[in-house]
Amino acid sequence: MAKINAAIFGASGYTGQELVRILLSHPQVNLIAASSRRYAGVPLAKVYPSLLGKTDMEFINATASEVAKSADVVFLALPHQVSQNAAGEIALTGKRIIDLSADFRLADVKTYEEWYTKHTQQDLLKKFVYGLPELFREEIKGAQMIANPGCYPTSILLALAPVVKMALIKNDSLIINSCSGVSGAGREPSVGSLFCEVAQGFKAYKAGGKHRHTPEIEQGLTRFAGAPVKVTFTPHLLPVNRGILSTSYASLAKKVTAAEIHACFQDFYCSENFVRIYPLGELPNINAVTGTNLCDIGIALDERTERLIIVSAIDNLVKGAAGQAAQNMNIIFDFPEGQGLETTSIFP
Amino acid sequence: MAKINAAIFGASGYTGQELVRILLSHPQVNLIAASSRRYAGVPLAKVYPSLLGKTDMEFINATASEVAKSADVVFLALPHQVSQNAAGEIALTGKRIIDLSADFRLADVKTYEEWYTKHTQQDLLKKFVYGLPELFREEIKGAQMIANPGCYPTSILLALAPVVKMALIKNDSLIINSCSGVSGAGREPSVGSLFCEVAQGFKAYKAGGKHRHTPEIEQGLTRFAGAPVKVTFTPHLLPVNRGILSTSYASLAKKVTAAEIHACFQDFYCSENFVRIYPLGELPNINAVTGTNLCDIGIALDERTERLIIVSAIDNLVKGAAGQAAQNMNIIFDFPEGQGLETTSIFP
Amino acid sequence: MAKINAAIFGASGYTGQELVRILLSHPQVNLIAASSRRYAGVPLAKVYPSLLGKTDMEFINATASEVAKSADVVFLALPHQVSQNAAGEIALTGKRIIDLSADFRLADVKTYEEWYTKHTQQDLLKKFVYGLPELFREEIKGAQMIANPGCYPTSILLALAPVVKMALIKNDSLIINSCSGVSGAGREPSVGSLFCEVAQGFKAYKAGGKHRHTPEIEQGLTRFAGAPVKVTFTPHLLPVNRGILSTSYASLAKKVTAAEIHACFQDFYCSENFVRIYPLGELPNINAVTGTNLCDIGIALDERTERLIIVSAIDNLVKGAAGQAAQNMNIIFDFPEGQGLETTSIFP
Amino acid sequence: MAKINAAIFGASGYTGQELVRILLSHPQVNLIAASSRRYAGVPLAKVYPSLLGKTDMEFINATASEVAKSADVVFLALPHQVSQNAAGEIALTGKRIIDLSADFRLADVKTYEEWYTKHTQQDLLKKFVYGLPELFREEIKGAQMIANPGCYPTSILLALAPVVKMALIKNDSLIINSCSGVSGAGREPSVGSLFCEVAQGFKAYKAGGKHRHTPEIEQGLTRFAGAPVKVTFTPHLLPVNRGILSTSYASLAKKVTAAEIHACFQDFYCSENFVRIYPLGELPNINAVTGTNLCDIGIALDERTERLIIVSAIDNLVKGAAGQAAQNMNIIFDFPEGQGLETTSIFP
Repeated sequence: MAKINAAIFGASGYTGQELVRILLSHPQVNLIAASSRRYAGVPLAKVYPSLLGKTDMEFINATASEVAKSADVVFLALPHQVSQNAAGEIALTGKRIIDLSADFRLADVKTYEEWYTKHTQQDLLKKFVYGLPELFREEIKGAQMIANPGCYPTSILLALAPVVKMALIKNDSLIINSCSGVSGAGREPSVGSLFCEVAQGFKAYKAGGKHRHTPEIEQGLTRFAGAPVKVTFTPHLLPVNRGILSTSYASLAKKVTAAEIHACFQDFYCSENFVRIYPLGELPNINAVTGTNLCDIGIALDERTERLIIVSAIDNLVKGAAGQAAQNMNIIFDFPEGQGLETTSIFP
Repeated sequence: MAKINAAIFGASGYTGQELVRILLSHPQVNLIAASSRRYAGVPLAKVYPSLLGKTDMEFINATASEVAKSADVVFLALPHQVSQNAAGEIALTGKRIIDLSADFRLADVKTYEEWYTKHTQQDLLKKFVYGLPELFREEIKGAQMIANPGCYPTSILLALAPVVKMALIKNDSLIINSCSGVSGAGREPSVGSLFCEVAQGFKAYKAGGKHRHTPEIEQGLTRFAGAPVKVTFTPHLLPVNRGILSTSYASLAKKVTAAEIHACFQDFYCSENFVRIYPLGELPNINAVTGTNLCDIGIALDERTERLIIVSAIDNLVKGAAGQAAQNMNIIFDFPEGQGLETTSIFP
Repeated sequence: MAKINAAIFGASGYTGQELVRILLSHPQVNLIAASSRRYAGVPLAKVYPSLLGKTDMEFINATASEVAKSADVVFLALPHQVSQNAAGEIALTGKRIIDLSADFRLADVKTYEEWYTKHTQQDLLKKFVYGLPELFREEIKGAQMIANPGCYPTSILLALAPVVKMALIKNDSLIINSCSGVSGAGREPSVGSLFCEVAQGFKAYKAGGKHRHTPEIEQGLTRFAGAPVKVTFTPHLLPVNRGILSTSYASLAKKVTAAEIHACFQDFYCSENFVRIYPLGELPNINAVTGTNLCDIGIALDERTERLIIVSAIDNLVKGAAGQAAQNMNIIFDFPEGQGLETTSIFP
Repeated sequence: MAKINAAIFGASGYTGQELVRILLSHPQVNLIAASSRRYAGVPLAKVYPSLLGKTDMEFINATASEVAKSADVVFLALPHQVSQNAAGEIALTGKRIIDLSADFRLADVKTYEEWYTKHTQQDLLKKFVYGLPELFREEIKGAQMIANPGCYPTSILLALAPVVKMALIKNDSLIINSCSGVSGAGREPSVGSLFCEVAQGFKAYKAGGKHRHTPEIEQGLTRFAGAPVKVTFTPHLLPVNRGILSTSYASLAKKVTAAEIHACFQDFYCSENFVRIYPLGELPNINAVTGTNLCDIGIALDERTERLIIVSAIDNLVKGAAGQAAQNMNIIFDFPEGQGLETTSIFP
């Protein structure tokens, strides 16, 4: 079994180390480099003791192109804006890129610049494919460069694509209430991510259409609706390490039963290994997907108000980041799509 | 300062012991009895070590009327259905009743029986006043019997009353996403409340209009709307001990600015000591109200979708149960309304 | 690759389901039965949604001998006393037994009966081998019946065996302070395991030589000391799902340096894959072994008081129960010892 | 009732804000200033929303002597070393000082400099009294300057003073295993205090006599023993916001029963309101003292090994810092010692 060489640029954050964990146990991958300016020269296992005995690698301090040198694919696990420039450098080497930042997710540069910052690699933008395999697998197959989706959008697009595509709901009625674990905020120390601030707490943030994942969600839904979709999206901070639970609300566009909607979801995802549709009457819990690449989906119909409630759960660091990145890698290198990603969640 | 005698019937649950804590330090109350069949004869401080050195009382096993004997007011901290019968017995003694169960919250007996169980004290029902002081203080003042509101409804009615009353929102657009700490499930051992099932987890439950607090929420809103209101309400289970955060969504009924809505809230609650309106741009966190009788409210306007988002936070055991019960007691006995309830939340 | 048939008797507790998880992904095992009286007829995935899509098995209600019928090995994940009888039945079938209860861990029946209850299978007792592979591998190899060690003893014996064997410490000076996650208490609902009782709490329990793992710890140490060893052992309850951290204290028996003791540990465990010795100056955290079969060990020398401090960390459900059971199975069936147990801990 | 003016220098950390909370509700105190360089000009309630509606104060940026100007007492809630200099400045104003740092706790300047840093205010050192009221109340009464004890030492000295004083234990056998909540690390952002690093984790740190509270513990014990005492002290990090549980081990110096030792504790603390001795057979949990100035103590005797186990629990931010500071203030100003500190712990 031939192996590919993979490198991670920006590997010391929570997403980066999660990718390290996945790639180290992937049977068709040699992890050849993990870069980190802050921890250059330090063994990965010293920064992340869970890796003790699993690898002797040290973080390296190298430029994007140096990292790309012997690699077949480079993962970028960097903040947005920083990622753009690294992608620009690596693009010159012709190596495949899987970018976990937001820099290449929005096809429209104007939208990007409105919500984020200046885009310095606009030419590159067209070459990137939005890497949500269950929804856009065919495009991903031939891609050189993948924009790995955001964590919130992954949980939401998988939940809403079936009903938007089948026109079962009124697209202007979409309200999405999402709750994320703290690892989504990364490992950069900040008061807001301290244990004491988060434990026994719960809050909404960036309510009122201010979170940057909003245009990414709308871009995805618009593709399935065939017409512009706008949503109300409110993220919340959960006192857990990992996991996103999105509770999406929509008014029905026509008279359908819960069973019919349920069947629609089952059909839509019937050949997907990473989406689990819950039996009617049951709803997902983030603790059943922790550490896995799964998206769990459950539905409920409020007949009194004719609204559909869809609850979806993912692990933000796996299906919402590193796992999905590895899934995209599997697709573009024609490996079995689930390779290295078949773990069962550990409970409790 | 003359003191009243208070008794708690069913005092060994989380709500009961919270009431014990509050009443023990209330300057105008003698707590004369705390009943519990399970723990009869056991010191309160043995069941709840936080009370060690604060009281030598033991739980007693007594009938409702025995408990009521020397009391001026009896608090019922019992499961619904059990509470009805106790209330019936105590009513005969002429003592004041503050019922923390759901048994007398719904004015319409048909609705009660549809959502709960048979009602055996229908005559008594009319004598009960719904005890949400900030909204119905005048009625509470003269009441003999108080139906203490549910925890979810308290957080929601306080959040929505101002905008429903001012007709700022479309009443048929109301979607309420609520998240509660585990103490809301009580102290009865069950798999679902075990540490291992809840920690690092998060889930929705009873989605689709199935939670019994739904008719209570609708009854309250209907009073402010002057016309029937139906809501979509989805509760979730948070991995925290205490706290409810409700994120309510509504479409605007007219063109208003965030500042105007904010002013509406400030006006509505300008003389209330237990409601704090957050400055525009800030949103509440349950950890700022833990242990207090406060309801914190913050708002955000999504101009892109013309929807209002209202976030409200309470401590489910205090403002959502025992604290509000004590507030009602203060009102009906003409004590200062905040007496014994002025604590500042402990953080972190 | 020939596969063996494995069955689990008493599979619906936390330990049982953990064994299910491990065996389902083990390349040389067919899991043919999982019994549970309470959940008979219910799909495993309904009781443990993490298993959804991983298995269609249902819990069965069957006798021990029925469960054993087509099995090559039967795991008993039952409470002590119940396990004895099941073992007695299965012994008649000649099938291999790995017992995760305490029933066959203590070689001396008197000690067992003093700390636990009457032993009804005393003849069987001699046939059981104490299954702590890193310390007693040779005996395990030929065994028909394995007594799988307790969680606390596993963490403690691995930490102390090297220094006791090398006579580096005074054996009468041993004090062991252990802290365990809540899953150690099992899934049986009880007030003490409720989220609200445990979260934000921490306590010692059964202090003063009252915990039943004490004689098991002493039996193990006595084997290495060659003379009776008594310890002071205090367990504590940690507000985490999984993990045991044992901090063991001992006075030095001779003048040695920290580096020499460290080298002693490295030598002792140099060919072990499931024991990781931390570099001097670093100490383990339970969150680096969660979900793994590892035991992490770190040491510190207090030169001021001439005491050695050894800190050891395991996952109580894996190395402390189901993982070690699978490791024992691997040994007795001559599979690679780490098969199915090589996962890296998920962090954070 | 005449009030005193109190000021806090360095009020924006967890300890500082806890002191704010306590002093704001103290009936004999006007809080006149709360300084913070970082948050100068920002309302306290913006940094700590729990204070919303409780105070309109803003943090000020002022020198120590400016802060002291109109104050009767100045609390220093600063890092060690910084505190020294502030104390030096304030000493010149003649105002009373209660220092919550480590700078004046160690009477011996050499010991201080060995464990901490250079001491620039050696002359002042003699004027400071070690403020552990239950043990040294008489000295505190007349003091101008109080060195408020460390959190670990408070929990340990209260647990050990009775048995050391009565010579019930061998002083050279003392081993102390302590576990602290995360707030002990302060509010300064650091990787080690992030939610994701701490939740579901547990570790020892600074094992082997390296923690700076060691000499403070030994100094206190030495006073009761009348001869030098050395201890082995190992701190651990608990995934809780607040609380320290210390499990102390000692060999008996003579034949005594558990009941005799228990009686010794009851006698020793018979007139103390902030120490609760648990009935024999029960042990404290940190969640029964959260938010209070209490120290809970339980004992167990291991007759098999003739060792005494003493378990003590405090809230590190209250009895371990701000609460004890307020208790000291009450003493030196001749207020009732428990004033403003009589709260019952909120559970759960």
